[in-house]
Amino acid sequence: MTPDEEIAALKAQVEELTRRAGVLEDIQAIRTLHFKYGYYMDKWLFPEIVDLFAEDGEMHFLNGIFKGKKGVKRMFGDGFGIAGPTYGVLSDHLHLQDIVDVAPDRMTAKGRFRVFLMMGIHESKKESTGIPGQFWEGGVYENLYVRENGVWKIKQLNYNLTWQAEYEKGWGHSAVKLLMVSPFTKTYPEDPRGPDELKPEPFRFWPETYLVPFHYSHPVTGKP
Amino acid sequence: MTPDEEIAALKAQVEELTRRAGVLEDIQAIRTLHFKYGYYMDKWLFPEIVDLFAEDGEMHFLNGIFKGKKGVKRMFGDGFGIAGPTYGVLSDHLHLQDIVDVAPDRMTAKGRFRVFLMMGIHESKKESTGIPGQFWEGGVYENLYVRENGVWKIKQLNYNLTWQAEYEKGWGHSAVKLLMVSPFTKTYPEDPRGPDELKPEPFRFWPETYLVPFHYSHPVTGKP
Amino acid sequence: MTPDEEIAALKAQVEELTRRAGVLEDIQAIRTLHFKYGYYMDKWLFPEIVDLFAEDGEMHFLNGIFKGKKGVKRMFGDGFGIAGPTYGVLSDHLHLQDIVDVAPDRMTAKGRFRVFLMMGIHESKKESTGIPGQFWEGGVYENLYVRENGVWKIKQLNYNLTWQAEYEKGWGHSAVKLLMVSPFTKTYPEDPRGPDELKPEPFRFWPETYLVPFHYSHPVTGKP
Repeated sequence: MTPDEEIAALKAQVEELTRRAGVLEDIQAIRTLHFKYGYYMDKWLFPEIVDLFAEDGEMHFLNGIFKGKKGVKRMFGDGFGIAGPTYGVLSDHLHLQDIVDVAPDRMTAKGRFRVFLMMGIHESKKESTGIPGQFWEGGVYENLYVRENGVWKIKQLNYNLTWQAEYEKGWGHSAVKLLMVSPFTKTYPEDPRGPDELKPEPFRFWPETYLVPFHYSHPVTGKP
Repeated sequence: MTPDEEIAALKAQVEELTRRAGVLEDIQAIRTLHFKYGYYMDKWLFPEIVDLFAEDGEMHFLNGIFKGKKGVKRMFGDGFGIAGPTYGVLSDHLHLQDIVDVAPDRMTAKGRFRVFLMMGIHESKKESTGIPGQFWEGGVYENLYVRENGVWKIKQLNYNLTWQAEYEKGWGHSAVKLLMVSPFTKTYPEDPRGPDELKPEPFRFWPETYLVPFHYSHPVTGKP
Repeated sequence: MTPDEEIAALKAQVEELTRRAGVLEDIQAIRTLHFKYGYYMDKWLFPEIVDLFAEDGEMHFLNGIFKGKKGVKRMFGDGFGIAGPTYGVLSDHLHLQDIVDVAPDRMTAKGRFRVFLMMGIHESKKESTGIPGQFWEGGVYENLYVRENGVWKIKQLNYNLTWQAEYEKGWGHSAVKLLMVSPFTKTYPEDPRGPDELKPEPFRFWPETYLVPFHYSHPVTGKP
């Protein structure tokens, strides 16, 4: 090769490497964005959570879709009257098993995460809350992300709450009902804390089970 | 340096950077391969799991070694008659604490992971299964991986189940026996679901404890 | 651009890419350093843990600060007389939700991690230990790291134990006291296993709650 050709080849290689490093940085940015969300959830830091969303971001929770930052804010807004660390409220959200895939143009991404959480109120807490006793919860997120001005934000936070179990009973004998929250029956503004839209399908929950669809193909066979 | 020397130096640097980016991509591919395996395990998606293995891959489980895709398939094949999400079956596999090391030639790799799982049957499920009640389980994987045609596959899935505990009892008072599974006493085909080989050492289990050997040296001292 | 200018531009790009790849490698080194610490903790491998620290590293635990490798060694030194895997001692430390940030000069770094652990003694164990029954524990690490001779080491291991709960009671009815350990009242050498320094603020613990300060700004707004 002539020096000019060598330089042209190097430029192409460096460009491609820059893209690859960028994808790896994107993955790290997105997985930690979600983990930070998890730490905020622990302590009911709702303003910080709303700020993780894009302006047109949305939240899927139970059978409801909350649209835009306004909808997201309404959903988290005044959860049980708790904001910030509160005496006798345990709410540890363990987020793990991250699978993040970035689109070729590096402008959008998808992420799957598992959450396992312990929620409850200590018996020494005098003020009543809407949080019932102590329970375990498990679920799966399948989220969308968008990069705006170089910053990754949540485009769609899609939480699939799959099971809850009272600590005293365990998942083998848990009540066949949701704890602490209920599927939505009305939209906003009829329900002042309701979603903008109800999902067409009914909310399914333990002991019903289902597969939260994977955003990715099989890693070896490539089958969807 | 002359321009030629400059170009030669740049080429070497770009080559080395390409290798380093490749290793980082390998680590991400392998850790998500394992996490995807975990999500498949949740829902008893055994064909998808078998497809994660290399043709000559193997699975170590309890005191048995299952060889080749055929052996792996036999091991997962008809587990308790369950396949896919099933009413009243909870089987959440939390995979975490990934430590992946890629060989210098980027053709093989090793990975350590922890698993913590909750397994059980809801009391409302009418059909009987072989799954007893509700229990916790903990264990450590020390796996081998191989890259074939640019795709990372499982070469050896080595699960070290270290403890189980009935939900009602906890690990302080758990039965001194395995739940749901038993160490193998015969190989295939004498045991139609048995392993191809029995490990020479007997299966050890809580309240016995042992160290699952680390595939890596100490990160600071370098001692094995 | 002239060939010389092209080469100069490429050199700058390659240098920047080398830095970026280095940061990604640092993150991976530090998160696995912490995860390896977690696996060592499972099995009470205290000499291996002490070796993860820089010579002037320190450990924050409860209301105590242990200084230098000597202090760290004293703190872990003879914990409950257990060293290595021990019959009937379960001590699984689940480490997850890693958020690692590397300083621009790549010489120091900060890391936040969550831990969730199960600790206890099986009833079949005859020898008495100082470990009471069986319990859950949750906490958050906010650590500092330093790179010495190219090797990342722990500069400050800062564990914020936030809750414990006896297995039989759960976090809703847990005793309002620490299990297994107690806040320090005296420093070394007055307390032969005591810290070098007591923190000015008293130790806070479940059902008290508080926010372990984040080492990072909000990922979208940039607010501290």
